[in-house]
Amino acid sequence: MDRINIGLFGFGTVGEGLWQALEKVDTGRAVIKKICIKNPDKGRSIPSTFFTVNPDDIFQDDEINLIVEVIDDDKFAYDIVVRALNKGISVVSGNKKMLAYHLPELIEMQQKTGAALLYDASACGSIPVIRNLEEYYDNDLLISVKGILNGSSNFILSKIFNEKISYDTALKMAQDLGFAESNPTFDVDGFDALFKLVIITMHAFGEYVNPDKLLNFGISNLSEDDIRFAREKDVRIKLVGQVEKLDDTNITLFVLPQLITRDKYIYSVEDEFNGVVIKGEFYYKQFMFGQGAGSKPTGSAVLSDITARFHDYRYEYKKYHRSTKFCYTENHTIRVYLRYESDSDLSLFNFSEITERYWSKEYKYVVGKISLADLIRIKGELRQRNLFLAAYP
Amino acid sequence: MDRINIGLFGFGTVGEGLWQALEKVDTGRAVIKKICIKNPDKGRSIPSTFFTVNPDDIFQDDEINLIVEVIDDDKFAYDIVVRALNKGISVVSGNKKMLAYHLPELIEMQQKTGAALLYDASACGSIPVIRNLEEYYDNDLLISVKGILNGSSNFILSKIFNEKISYDTALKMAQDLGFAESNPTFDVDGFDALFKLVIITMHAFGEYVNPDKLLNFGISNLSEDDIRFAREKDVRIKLVGQVEKLDDTNITLFVLPQLITRDKYIYSVEDEFNGVVIKGEFYYKQFMFGQGAGSKPTGSAVLSDITARFHDYRYEYKKYHRSTKFCYTENHTIRVYLRYESDSDLSLFNFSEITERYWSKEYKYVVGKISLADLIRIKGELRQRNLFLAAYP
Repeated sequence: MDRINIGLFGFGTVGEGLWQALEKVDTGRAVIKKICIKNPDKGRSIPSTFFTVNPDDIFQDDEINLIVEVIDDDKFAYDIVVRALNKGISVVSGNKKMLAYHLPELIEMQQKTGAALLYDASACGSIPVIRNLEEYYDNDLLISVKGILNGSSNFILSKIFNEKISYDTALKMAQDLGFAESNPTFDVDGFDALFKLVIITMHAFGEYVNPDKLLNFGISNLSEDDIRFAREKDVRIKLVGQVEKLDDTNITLFVLPQLITRDKYIYSVEDEFNGVVIKGEFYYKQFMFGQGAGSKPTGSAVLSDITARFHDYRYEYKKYHRSTKFCYTENHTIRVYLRYESDSDLSLFNFSEITERYWSKEYKYVVGKISLADLIRIKGELRQRNLFLAAYP
Repeated sequence: MDRINIGLFGFGTVGEGLWQALEKVDTGRAVIKKICIKNPDKGRSIPSTFFTVNPDDIFQDDEINLIVEVIDDDKFAYDIVVRALNKGISVVSGNKKMLAYHLPELIEMQQKTGAALLYDASACGSIPVIRNLEEYYDNDLLISVKGILNGSSNFILSKIFNEKISYDTALKMAQDLGFAESNPTFDVDGFDALFKLVIITMHAFGEYVNPDKLLNFGISNLSEDDIRFAREKDVRIKLVGQVEKLDDTNITLFVLPQLITRDKYIYSVEDEFNGVVIKGEFYYKQFMFGQGAGSKPTGSAVLSDITARFHDYRYEYKKYHRSTKFCYTENHTIRVYLRYESDSDLSLFNFSEITERYWSKEYKYVVGKISLADLIRIKGELRQRNLFLAAYP
């Protein structure tokens, strides 16, 4: 492509960041031609002539040769991506939820139509994790990818641990700063991290797993007792997504709070930053660290996806197309810390071994081993009860 | 390329690491066919049928479609690379010195012959810094690249600062562990870091500067006084290479020890690890961290360069080919700590401002501002005298 005329969907935080990045870079070769928005009455920082509420104004403009989609609504995002790919127009997307639920069909669609779908901005904002997994760590030496994938929940945990602010106050701060949604479940209950992990797993190990089948548990149940427990053990609680090779054929993945010791790289990932540790058989550990959220970092990540199209860059999904692939398994034992309230809570859990137990009227916990499959079986219950669960490696 | 038949030059640390990585990965599509070595009498871990001392055995084998060069001798490496490119055969190289001195002509040669030259393994071992600068940070938002680029000297500094081991003992340890050459100048005097920085600068800002024109000063003059000074100020001394955009047209680069405060990412980069901080206008700072030296990490980095050829990957040198490019300038002021012995040493330095001064019979230092041009003018003298110089930002 010599010149990229962008049809942009969405002009929220990321859309504005992209606009500013393009203004700053002034490539002259990539310009936003039209922006489709939902609400025409909202005040905008750029001339109204750019805006439309009708997707057709973008899809029927033959000069537009790249669709960039940075809207929240995953269903609408899906429609846009499918429509663009079917028209043979390449797409840059930042919608992790949409991607996590539809990757296989979107991969097939790219193959069929020849159009490309890029989404490095969807996982870890400004850290180029997908492209590195796709291009650089493209061989069997990869052992695991593990990281802090959600900036909002990490911001909250940093405030709690470093400034001794309460969970509720920290959440309010994150919302005021624009890191967390008004409905914070997406962030604090590990859904956002899970969707990113599903995308990462595709590019790390070539395996796709529907998010609904996976375990995610977040930090919304975190109590003062859990925080004190972590402090006493000199560890920090971080919300971690991880995918790991178990043997030559199996991988496992989940999103859980984890008790992280000082010697771990992600121990020092603070505030809204993301950090990803890539472990391999030959290169030990690589650590990539950067801003995972926010208007400008994400906008510039979208820009990198856009300029990659100048060179016709596309994901090849090499690992996904291999004949011998890794399979996801739930058959994996995790050591966890579980804080619970009642015996009926505890009876939910099928521990294979309990190595530590504390009981008082106010605070009860066990440390023990449990299978991932057992946790997935009861995941619907976990958030309903007054309990907190964290991996304790 | 469907199948890669490798002609390998060199079977030292990196060559063996590559062999092991290929065995482990077992792509079946990339195999080492012939290995050219200097010394046929040395004991080898693999069958002797693989070896030859005659380069023609590789160059005249029409089945060989990729040359991999991991030898120490930069002049011989240059001959190999030129011969291969001129024959239209692509090359993977790990020789930073050869690259740093010959990049422009090697770029031209690639354009002319259509063959590709890849060398991600040459800078920072297992950290994919070149490819990321080339592909991901390919726009004007980049502000600086700064990092610990040499594992051996960092290992020595870690031992000194964390374990209070003397410089000489730490150097001996590094040599025993195979991190440092028997002639350690290449590592400890900042030449290795400088060559890597020249390569990084090409891919970060599209500008080439001959290493001889640049300032590099290392840690071989470090004394107990300098170490005590750093400890008293609660900083660590790290050997840092950095390239930085000064304005819209100028960049500057140099390799110097630096006094690093606790709040900096590279403060915690220890032992033989490398760490690179990429700073941009929109994404604040990205930090990449990993093993920068050693057989397996570097071997696996070479492997990534090899497998990239399956997809005909090549560096595009986009920034180098731009009409408006950045220019290197020495016109830049640095704040430094200078420990010196005699007034004649001090008179070498043309400080524009001195902000701190200490004098006793045993130990004398100044902290002040000096221009990079002035330092380059006297760089031949620096190592001859009993003085130590470090940037003190």
